[in-house]
Amino acid sequence: MSNAKKVSALRRHISLLLLENSDLVDDILNRHSGDTATDHKVLLDQTAEICQSIIGLHAADLADLLESLPYDERLALWRLIPIERRGRVLIEVSDSISDDLISDMRNKDILKAVRTLDVDEQAQLARILPRHLLGRILTSLEPKQRAQFRGAINYDEECVGHIMDFKLITIRPDVTLAAVQRYLRYRKVIPDSTDKLFVTDRKNTLIGELSLANILLNAPETPVSAVMDKQPTLFQPEDQADEAAGAFERYNLISAPVVDSKGKLMGRLTVEDIVDVVNKESDSNLRRSGGLTPSEDVYAPVYKAVRNRWTWLAINLCTAMVASRVIGLFENTLSHLVALATLMPIVAGLGGNTGNQTITMIVRALALHQLEHGRKSYLLLKELGVAVVNGVIWGSVMGLITYALYGSPEMGGVMMLAILLNLLLAALMGVLIPLIMVKFGRDPAVGSSVMITAITDTGGFFIFLGLATLFLLP
Amino acid sequence: MSNAKKVSALRRHISLLLLENSDLVDDILNRHSGDTATDHKVLLDQTAEICQSIIGLHAADLADLLESLPYDERLALWRLIPIERRGRVLIEVSDSISDDLISDMRNKDILKAVRTLDVDEQAQLARILPRHLLGRILTSLEPKQRAQFRGAINYDEECVGHIMDFKLITIRPDVTLAAVQRYLRYRKVIPDSTDKLFVTDRKNTLIGELSLANILLNAPETPVSAVMDKQPTLFQPEDQADEAAGAFERYNLISAPVVDSKGKLMGRLTVEDIVDVVNKESDSNLRRSGGLTPSEDVYAPVYKAVRNRWTWLAINLCTAMVASRVIGLFENTLSHLVALATLMPIVAGLGGNTGNQTITMIVRALALHQLEHGRKSYLLLKELGVAVVNGVIWGSVMGLITYALYGSPEMGGVMMLAILLNLLLAALMGVLIPLIMVKFGRDPAVGSSVMITAITDTGGFFIFLGLATLFLLP
Repeated sequence: MSNAKKVSALRRHISLLLLENSDLVDDILNRHSGDTATDHKVLLDQTAEICQSIIGLHAADLADLLESLPYDERLALWRLIPIERRGRVLIEVSDSISDDLISDMRNKDILKAVRTLDVDEQAQLARILPRHLLGRILTSLEPKQRAQFRGAINYDEECVGHIMDFKLITIRPDVTLAAVQRYLRYRKVIPDSTDKLFVTDRKNTLIGELSLANILLNAPETPVSAVMDKQPTLFQPEDQADEAAGAFERYNLISAPVVDSKGKLMGRLTVEDIVDVVNKESDSNLRRSGGLTPSEDVYAPVYKAVRNRWTWLAINLCTAMVASRVIGLFENTLSHLVALATLMPIVAGLGGNTGNQTITMIVRALALHQLEHGRKSYLLLKELGVAVVNGVIWGSVMGLITYALYGSPEMGGVMMLAILLNLLLAALMGVLIPLIMVKFGRDPAVGSSVMITAITDTGGFFIFLGLATLFLLP
Repeated sequence: MSNAKKVSALRRHISLLLLENSDLVDDILNRHSGDTATDHKVLLDQTAEICQSIIGLHAADLADLLESLPYDERLALWRLIPIERRGRVLIEVSDSISDDLISDMRNKDILKAVRTLDVDEQAQLARILPRHLLGRILTSLEPKQRAQFRGAINYDEECVGHIMDFKLITIRPDVTLAAVQRYLRYRKVIPDSTDKLFVTDRKNTLIGELSLANILLNAPETPVSAVMDKQPTLFQPEDQADEAAGAFERYNLISAPVVDSKGKLMGRLTVEDIVDVVNKESDSNLRRSGGLTPSEDVYAPVYKAVRNRWTWLAINLCTAMVASRVIGLFENTLSHLVALATLMPIVAGLGGNTGNQTITMIVRALALHQLEHGRKSYLLLKELGVAVVNGVIWGSVMGLITYALYGSPEMGGVMMLAILLNLLLAALMGVLIPLIMVKFGRDPAVGSSVMITAITDTGGFFIFLGLATLFLLP
């Protein structure tokens, strides 16, 4: 059986044991209801079975499993994971559930779990740990590690400094490859994702990097300085993590050095950290476009879900109120021609669809830095051109349908003109909104969809009912 | 100057030269308009300058630069990139622009460019190359490579078999590490992203893998079989690429073997390929949610953009028509109470917002396999619970506002009830739509947002106007 299949079978086994057996969950959570239908011996056996299965699972698999379980089952499984493995699992789970997991642990156990981790991982957890424990974690570290920990937590979450790690091997330029190999054998272990060693001088200034492949491919008597790469791709702790991710992808990096402004080696970035960044980003893009906060757990209790979503609903309510008041301006027109009420959502809907298409494309182009030196006016003209073509085509279609339905050529004409104008408005705002947001330093992916829909709704109602008032009223 | 800054300066330099100088672009594209304002000598110098800058840029940087330029400037830059470098660039650009680039090349040049690539990369390009050239590419390959090429193009684009490469080093289990190192030195080069060698028997059956680190860390006289990993994480060519990506992330892999059903080594997957998969996925999720085809180029000419987007607009028109007809059913009610036309978009809008929030969360949970063994009924109840809470809160707010505006407590009551019911409908369909789509083997990320909006619009109008007809008409 392949590894992946074995893991999936173990996951399934644990899930089913917990999900189909609420007595077992109650027992693990010490909620003795009294009327337990299952024999206590059976419960003990099942608990032992789960503990056994946990041993076969990687921390990342356990994290996935925890996220896929409802609240009670999740907590029961968490209690069965040994303390010394929980640190790694906490690193892997998403923010939405780590709070619950941590608040189920005693301080002593949290500290024990955290101490199993490397400094950079401890710093990553610092954000979600209870504040009062940070001091105790700091005192448990050696002076050098303490400085690294303090450094890492001071960087913004989206900076290279926050995600870099400190597990690296440095060598001097003047030794031979044979000496390097002896040194590695003496060390006995090598950190994960090590594809290269960093070459530094006595003052810890980075002067090059040496890939493991180069150690193997060259004669043992060659000095490091003769085969090292003297112009490595390097990062500074203030660099944005997503830009570093771009560089990793572009240059196919496995690891890369991080240096301070004076060129001193501070740590390294690895492709593992980068893959996490890319995944988190795509996840949060997906969620933000739907109006969720970055970390809603699918099994979150109702009150948490309500709290998470209320902001977007409130904003939506306000924009809908504005659109509604715009319609209210034309109550007189509507009372003369009720058919207008039937048609107006079509104008608004088509505008919203067009505007969102434009915005999606511009937001993507901005994210890929495609508009930096590009001609923004060209882009605006292109989108307006698309709107004119679509407006004429679909406006005519709807104009004809309106004429067929209501027998009024004037009403068909108003419909067509309103669709055309609203699509133009949508294209114009679809280009301008993200560009203006970027100009003011905002993330164009957040909220621009809500804004464009608000504008095309309000604008659509206004244009359509306004034209109708001008041309259709007696 | 750091590497990244140098690259960005070169990119900017080329962009500005092309964008601010249409004579230069015309000259490169051989469009002599006659009234050229710039001296020919100056144009030659600028062309030489761009060619010089191109040398300093990686293929991936060139690809980004091409994508960020409008059509003419893009083509001009493409003509200045040497044929032997174009193959790599074609691998890196997105599908939306590769067609244009390839159709600007002569067959002879395409073949020349393709031959600079590895077999797996040639197979990746096969999809976008002119059909009649595939035969000529095949004949230029050696028999073994030809088989690999044929194999790779036969796998679906989303399978491991399509993205695996064949650049791997195999060794036998019975040799010593010293012999392995001698062999590597004799080979002189090692493929990119090689962190391990694959151990096979005489029949090419995979029996383990040996990391470069292990070669360096152990005594030279150790046999390979003693230090190799005998249970490597492995993949089969039929596996889904996005699941392989999950495994790479979970187990922090740099490379992994791909074997056929009999355990014979076929190729390998590398983290490079995986990062591409992850990026493509997040990109296409973003675009599909906005109703764009996967590959719309931001500088696409108007006719292409219109063609790309018309499907979603047509679907949107149809759903808007349905909603409009539902309103039409209540024209009598509306003619008695025009204020209803003002209020009805609010009910529909809040429902759409809630439904999209729910769908976003479910689609994400499905993508992360969080619902496989989970309790779907629990989820449905939770979402309905959230809808009740939000419906009561926001329904009351809107009910009171309606009462304040129109002085009619009955109308306020109808408003409240309609919002509550529409939010319940949104939650119900928000859970059911993606689950049903998965059941029928469809991707829940495509189109579910359009469906839920159609349902909450139509449903919202029906519920609100229906309740009004029941309770508000004299």
